[in-house]
Amino acid sequence: MKKTLRTRSFELSLIKSIELEASKIPGVISLAQGIPSFPIAEGIREHLKKILDNKNVGKYSLTNGLPLLREAVSLNLEKLRIHADADKEILITAGASEAISATLLTLLEPGDEIILFGPCYASYISAVKTAHGVIRWVELDKENWRLDLDEFKNAITPKTRAVFFANPNNPTGTFFPKDELLKIAELAVKNGLYIIVDEVYRDFVYGTDVYFSLLRESKFRENVISIYSFSKAYALTGFRIGYLVADEKLVREIVKVHDALANCAPVISQYAAYYALEFEPDLPSAYKNEFISRRAIVLSWLDKHKDHFSYSIPEAAYFVFPKLLQNSDSRKFVKKILKESKVALVPGIAFGPAGEGHLRISFGAEEDKIRSALNRVGEILR
Amino acid sequence: MKKTLRTRSFELSLIKSIELEASKIPGVISLAQGIPSFPIAEGIREHLKKILDNKNVGKYSLTNGLPLLREAVSLNLEKLRIHADADKEILITAGASEAISATLLTLLEPGDEIILFGPCYASYISAVKTAHGVIRWVELDKENWRLDLDEFKNAITPKTRAVFFANPNNPTGTFFPKDELLKIAELAVKNGLYIIVDEVYRDFVYGTDVYFSLLRESKFRENVISIYSFSKAYALTGFRIGYLVADEKLVREIVKVHDALANCAPVISQYAAYYALEFEPDLPSAYKNEFISRRAIVLSWLDKHKDHFSYSIPEAAYFVFPKLLQNSDSRKFVKKILKESKVALVPGIAFGPAGEGHLRISFGAEEDKIRSALNRVGEILR
Repeated sequence: MKKTLRTRSFELSLIKSIELEASKIPGVISLAQGIPSFPIAEGIREHLKKILDNKNVGKYSLTNGLPLLREAVSLNLEKLRIHADADKEILITAGASEAISATLLTLLEPGDEIILFGPCYASYISAVKTAHGVIRWVELDKENWRLDLDEFKNAITPKTRAVFFANPNNPTGTFFPKDELLKIAELAVKNGLYIIVDEVYRDFVYGTDVYFSLLRESKFRENVISIYSFSKAYALTGFRIGYLVADEKLVREIVKVHDALANCAPVISQYAAYYALEFEPDLPSAYKNEFISRRAIVLSWLDKHKDHFSYSIPEAAYFVFPKLLQNSDSRKFVKKILKESKVALVPGIAFGPAGEGHLRISFGAEEDKIRSALNRVGEILR
Repeated sequence: MKKTLRTRSFELSLIKSIELEASKIPGVISLAQGIPSFPIAEGIREHLKKILDNKNVGKYSLTNGLPLLREAVSLNLEKLRIHADADKEILITAGASEAISATLLTLLEPGDEIILFGPCYASYISAVKTAHGVIRWVELDKENWRLDLDEFKNAITPKTRAVFFANPNNPTGTFFPKDELLKIAELAVKNGLYIIVDEVYRDFVYGTDVYFSLLRESKFRENVISIYSFSKAYALTGFRIGYLVADEKLVREIVKVHDALANCAPVISQYAAYYALEFEPDLPSAYKNEFISRRAIVLSWLDKHKDHFSYSIPEAAYFVFPKLLQNSDSRKFVKKILKESKVALVPGIAFGPAGEGHLRISFGAEEDKIRSALNRVGEILR
């Protein structure tokens, strides 16, 4: 019998609905979606042109991915001192989104609770709702986006199945260093929770701190699902290619859902990822240097508009998440900016209730685009 | 708290687990997975090589797909006398699998019933279970794989939300002509059911009968979700690219789940689909002619082994689904064949209980491969 569709209770990620709206405005500049501006690297592009003549590229791969890519990922992880068996502990997915949904749809039963640290990436909200999970928010400290462990502890109930966060975090540009991460993991494991960590920004950490992955701690391995994507680190967003690393017993279950969702990751994208690791290993650090310059442009602009924004300097990823000092309704503010200055930004509310009163500015775009966009916004503010 | 994972109650599509097993056997020939053997068509390949130099190919598209592809799909559907608005009624997906999962995850609430006609494509089973649906089987007549409308009617309960079938059907190679389809749709709509039709084999109908899509009947449009893929018709299985057509109100909901599952379809694959429609419109009929020859090889082999198999001639798709006359356990039979003759086939049980006692042979592979594989199997049977 027809009923109201359950999806009526949630909305399309605000990032996506803003991009859809913006696409209809001629001359718009978008600093909304988290897209690195770089073209496909030559070492990837030229190899892809050749592989197109190989007849297997047009065909399905094994559902868990091309063996050659799984091997390359395993070797690449060794460099980060992470051991993962190419056959049993690595699953190639159609981007991080698919990896996240496959994981949630495997771990959660309807009504199970999952802890998110707010603000978090907008699509986590719809992904959890798609998987019939119930979100328990633990809000990060608005001054510095750190986690209060007691608040995390207090949010755990007998129905809590997992904790799920991005490290580094989007939209805040902060990350949990090793000591904080270990405390989070210990608390989670003690309470029998799975730990889903989205590590897609791990290559972009700007300070002297070295990024630490929970995959390095064998005592947590049965609980950790680590998700990675080639979208950000190798500027391959359109290719929809990523992977997850987890214990063999978990991968054996998640692959069933992955198969139902995706069949296999797009094969030409699997080759793109393979060529990225093989022939363009230095891309992430080159991009990181670019982002440092771009970040400086945004921060200096924010400094010039101190009566409108306050912010903490992003230590990772390519987002600034300033607080709006003169507007409490972030959605209204963003709509006004889009209409009056043709610049697309993302309202903080997109990232959960803890994000309200803020604004996400991506510095993934080219410098001239960032400058033009900010100039336009500046004119409106004056 | 950790519990037994819910996915333990279902298995990876048997087609995929057989392919995984077969991939470890040197010299194996697979007639298992439904892969058309053709290389990427030149008109697609050469354009893809050029578009790789366009920087937008590496970037996300709008979540509902590239406008140019949606326009091309809309025009293509007009040729089949189907009207679908490129902006509102067409959603580009990461293959039919993603379209199916996004649809099920939108329409079903946990415990909702969905009617499948058995035998059906193996992955429908895990897709429904992934979406927490409950399968109500309506078994097709084993003599000719037709549907008994009364059995369909009797299977409908107040909890039934949808009926979901492939037309043409995989694994049986049969299809519902217009009159049967209209009766199914009338009964479904009268009972307030959604009708999910997987039309990925619609280009391969071998008789004189013209394929009919329910999308042509405006009175059913609010209930019908039609799913299509470029995998079969244009030999692009590895590209993971397809689309769904439905009423605007449905698309507006399904896109939310699509966004959570996929973000957007792989962009280079969206271009591949666009070039297929634009520059290689005759591929499906060329492939169809090939399949007619390949089918003849399989059928003549089956005729030579009448003491082992009986079958009905496939009228569509590229599968034969013979009955095993000397073996009731299809899984055991297939394991024996794989081990002793290194040929991968799919046991009927993969397609639901109604498929038991049968075997699926794909004739998507090249003629010489089909011949070698069948020779090997013949030796075992003797």
